[in-house]
Amino acid sequence: MIKVIARSVIKENHLSDALEIYRHLVAETVKETGCIAYELFQELNNPNILTLIEEWEDMEALQRHTQTPHFITLVEQLSLFEKELPVLIYKKLF
Amino acid sequence: MIKVIARSVIKENHLSDALEIYRHLVAETVKETGCIAYELFQELNNPNILTLIEEWEDMEALQRHTQTPHFITLVEQLSLFEKELPVLIYKKLF
Repeated sequence: MIKVIARSVIKENHLSDALEIYRHLVAETVKETGCIAYELFQELNNPNILTLIEEWEDMEALQRHTQTPHFITLVEQLSLFEKELPVLIYKKLF
Repeated sequence: MIKVIARSVIKENHLSDALEIYRHLVAETVKETGCIAYELFQELNNPNILTLIEEWEDMEALQRHTQTPHFITLVEQLSLFEKELPVLIYKKLF
Protein backbone atom coordinates (compact mmCIF):
# COMPACT_ATOMS: atom_id res chain seq x y z
CA MET A 1 0.00 0.00 0.00
CA ILE A 2 1.23 3.45 -0.94
CA LYS A 3 0.15 6.62 0.88
CA VAL A 4 0.41 10.05 -0.73
CA ILE A 5 0.07 13.46 0.90
CA ALA A 6 -0.26 16.37 -1.52
CA ARG A 7 -0.31 19.69 0.29
CA SER A 8 -1.75 22.44 -1.88
CA VAL A 9 -1.26 26.11 -0.98
CA ILE A 10 -4.04 28.05 -2.74
CA LYS A 11 -3.59 31.64 -3.94
CA GLU A 12 -5.60 34.35 -2.12
CA ASN A 13 -9.27 34.63 -3.25
CA HIS A 14 -9.13 31.43 -5.35
CA LEU A 15 -10.25 28.87 -2.77
CA SER A 16 -13.67 28.30 -4.31
CA ASP A 17 -12.14 27.92 -7.80
CA ALA A 18 -9.73 25.28 -6.48
CA LEU A 19 -12.41 23.46 -4.47
CA GLU A 20 -14.58 23.09 -7.56
CA ILE A 21 -11.74 21.47 -9.51
CA TYR A 22 -10.76 19.25 -6.54
CA ARG A 23 -14.36 18.05 -6.21
CA HIS A 24 -14.20 16.89 -9.82
CA LEU A 25 -10.74 15.33 -9.39
CA VAL A 26 -11.83 13.37 -6.30
CA ALA A 27 -15.06 12.18 -7.96
CA GLU A 28 -13.16 10.81 -10.98
CA THR A 29 -10.16 9.40 -9.10
CA VAL A 30 -12.08 7.28 -6.59
CA LYS A 31 -13.42 5.31 -9.56
CA GLU A 32 -9.90 4.27 -10.63
CA THR A 33 -8.66 0.70 -10.18
CA GLY A 34 -6.21 0.47 -7.31
CA CYS A 35 -7.44 3.64 -5.60
CA ILE A 36 -8.14 2.73 -1.95
CA ALA A 37 -8.81 6.27 -0.69
CA TYR A 38 -8.59 9.77 -2.14
CA GLU A 39 -9.84 12.48 0.23
CA LEU A 40 -9.44 16.26 0.48
CA PHE A 41 -8.78 17.97 3.82
CA GLN A 42 -8.54 21.61 4.86
CA GLU A 43 -6.08 22.91 7.49
CA LEU A 44 -8.03 24.25 10.47
CA ASN A 45 -5.48 27.01 11.06
CA ASN A 46 -5.18 28.01 7.39
CA PRO A 47 -8.23 27.46 5.15
CA ASN A 48 -6.14 28.22 2.03
CA ILE A 49 -4.21 25.02 2.56
CA LEU A 50 -5.91 21.94 1.10
CA THR A 51 -4.34 18.53 1.46
CA LEU A 52 -5.11 15.39 -0.50
CA ILE A 53 -4.49 12.20 1.46
CA GLU A 54 -4.42 9.29 -0.94
CA GLU A 55 -4.05 5.53 -0.60
CA TRP A 56 -3.10 3.30 -3.53
CA GLU A 57 -2.73 -0.48 -3.80
CA ASP A 58 0.76 -0.08 -5.29
CA MET A 59 3.06 2.28 -7.21
CA GLU A 60 1.68 1.05 -10.55
CA ALA A 61 -1.84 2.21 -9.59
CA LEU A 62 -0.43 5.60 -8.57
CA GLN A 63 1.55 5.92 -11.80
CA ARG A 64 -1.52 4.97 -13.89
CA HIS A 65 -3.41 7.71 -12.02
CA THR A 66 -0.93 10.38 -13.09
CA GLN A 67 -1.46 9.40 -16.76
CA THR A 68 -5.28 9.65 -16.69
CA PRO A 69 -6.90 12.43 -18.77
CA HIS A 70 -8.78 13.81 -15.75
CA PHE A 71 -5.60 14.02 -13.65
CA ILE A 72 -3.59 15.73 -16.39
CA THR A 73 -6.35 18.21 -17.28
CA LEU A 74 -7.46 19.07 -13.74
CA VAL A 75 -3.97 19.37 -12.26
CA GLU A 76 -3.14 21.80 -15.04
CA GLN A 77 -6.27 23.83 -14.21
CA LEU A 78 -5.38 23.73 -10.51
CA SER A 79 -1.91 25.10 -11.19
CA LEU A 80 -3.56 28.47 -12.03
CA PHE A 81 -4.79 28.70 -8.44
CA GLU A 82 -1.95 27.03 -6.53
CA LYS A 83 1.21 28.64 -5.14
CA GLU A 84 2.86 25.29 -4.40
CA LEU A 85 1.97 21.56 -4.34
CA PRO A 86 4.63 19.42 -2.67
CA VAL A 87 3.72 15.75 -3.08
CA LEU A 88 5.14 13.28 -0.53
CA ILE A 89 4.97 9.51 -1.01
CA TYR A 90 4.99 7.08 1.94
CA LYS A 91 4.88 3.43 2.82
CA LYS A 92 3.12 2.24 5.96
CA LEU A 93 5.30 0.99 8.83
CA PHE A 94 2.73 0.11 11.51
CA MET B 1 -13.85 13.88 12.30
CA ILE B 2 -10.40 15.45 12.80
CA LYS B 3 -7.32 14.44 10.80
CA VAL B 4 -3.79 15.09 12.02
CA ILE B 5 -0.53 14.85 10.11
CA ALA B 6 2.59 14.96 12.27
CA ARG B 7 5.74 14.97 10.16
CA SER B 8 8.78 13.96 12.18
CA VAL B 9 12.29 14.62 10.89
CA ILE B 10 14.60 12.17 12.70
CA LYS B 11 18.23 12.99 13.49
CA GLU B 12 20.93 11.01 11.62
CA ASN B 13 21.62 7.50 13.07
CA HIS B 14 18.60 7.62 15.42
CA LEU B 15 15.92 6.07 13.21
CA SER B 16 15.78 2.78 15.12
CA ASP B 17 15.58 4.62 18.46
CA ALA B 18 12.65 6.69 17.18
CA LEU B 19 10.89 3.70 15.62
CA GLU B 20 10.96 1.81 18.91
CA ILE B 21 9.30 4.71 20.71
CA TYR B 22 6.76 5.23 17.94
CA ARG B 23 5.83 1.53 18.03
CA HIS B 24 4.99 1.95 21.72
CA LEU B 25 3.12 5.24 21.12
CA VAL B 26 0.99 3.71 18.35
CA ALA B 27 0.23 0.58 20.41
CA GLU B 28 -1.01 2.68 23.35
CA THR B 29 -2.83 5.36 21.34
CA VAL B 30 -5.01 3.06 19.24
CA LYS B 31 -6.59 1.88 22.52
CA GLU B 32 -7.81 5.41 23.34
CA THR B 33 -11.49 6.32 23.13
CA GLY B 34 -12.19 8.46 20.08
CA CYS B 35 -9.09 7.30 18.20
CA ILE B 36 -10.26 6.19 14.73
CA ALA B 37 -6.80 5.66 13.20
CA TYR B 38 -3.21 6.26 14.27
CA GLU B 39 -0.65 5.01 11.76
CA LEU B 40 3.05 5.64 11.12
CA PHE B 41 4.40 6.10 7.59
CA GLN B 42 7.90 6.52 6.19
CA GLU B 43 8.77 8.77 3.24
CA LEU B 44 9.98 6.66 0.32
CA ASN B 45 12.47 9.33 -0.74
CA ASN B 46 13.77 10.02 2.77
CA PRO B 47 13.65 7.19 5.32
CA ASN B 48 14.52 9.63 8.14
CA ILE B 49 11.13 11.27 7.74
CA LEU B 50 8.36 9.50 9.65
CA THR B 51 4.81 10.77 9.49
CA LEU B 52 1.93 9.97 11.79
CA ILE B 53 -1.46 10.16 10.10
CA GLU B 54 -4.13 10.26 12.74
CA GLU B 55 -7.92 10.32 12.74
CA TRP B 56 -9.95 11.38 15.77
CA GLU B 57 -13.70 11.50 16.37
CA ASP B 58 -13.47 15.13 17.51
CA MET B 59 -11.16 17.79 18.96
CA GLU B 60 -11.96 16.64 22.52
CA ALA B 61 -10.61 13.15 21.78
CA LEU B 62 -7.46 14.68 20.31
CA GLN B 63 -7.00 16.99 23.31
CA ARG B 64 -7.49 14.07 25.75
CA HIS B 65 -4.78 12.23 23.80
CA THR B 66 -2.25 14.99 24.38
CA GLN B 67 -2.86 14.73 28.16
CA THR B 68 -2.30 10.96 28.42
CA PRO B 69 0.78 9.76 30.34
CA HIS B 70 2.04 7.69 27.39
CA PHE B 71 1.80 10.66 25.01
CA ILE B 72 3.57 13.05 27.36
CA THR B 73 6.35 10.58 28.26
CA LEU B 74 6.95 9.19 24.78
CA VAL B 75 6.84 12.54 22.96
CA GLU B 76 9.44 13.79 25.41
CA GLN B 77 11.64 10.76 24.68
CA LEU B 78 11.13 11.27 20.94
CA SER B 79 12.28 14.89 21.17
CA LEU B 80 15.82 13.57 21.82
CA PHE B 81 15.82 12.01 18.35
CA GLU B 82 13.76 14.53 16.37
CA LYS B 83 15.00 17.65 14.56
CA GLU B 84 11.45 18.96 14.02
CA LEU B 85 7.82 17.81 14.38
CA PRO B 86 5.32 20.14 12.68
CA VAL B 87 1.79 19.01 13.52
CA LEU B 88 -0.99 19.99 11.10
CA ILE B 89 -4.68 19.61 11.96
CA TYR B 90 -7.35 19.16 9.26
CA LYS B 91 -11.05 18.71 8.77
CA LYS B 92 -12.38 16.57 5.93
CA LEU B 93 -14.04 18.38 3.00
CA PHE B 94 -14.97 15.52 0.67
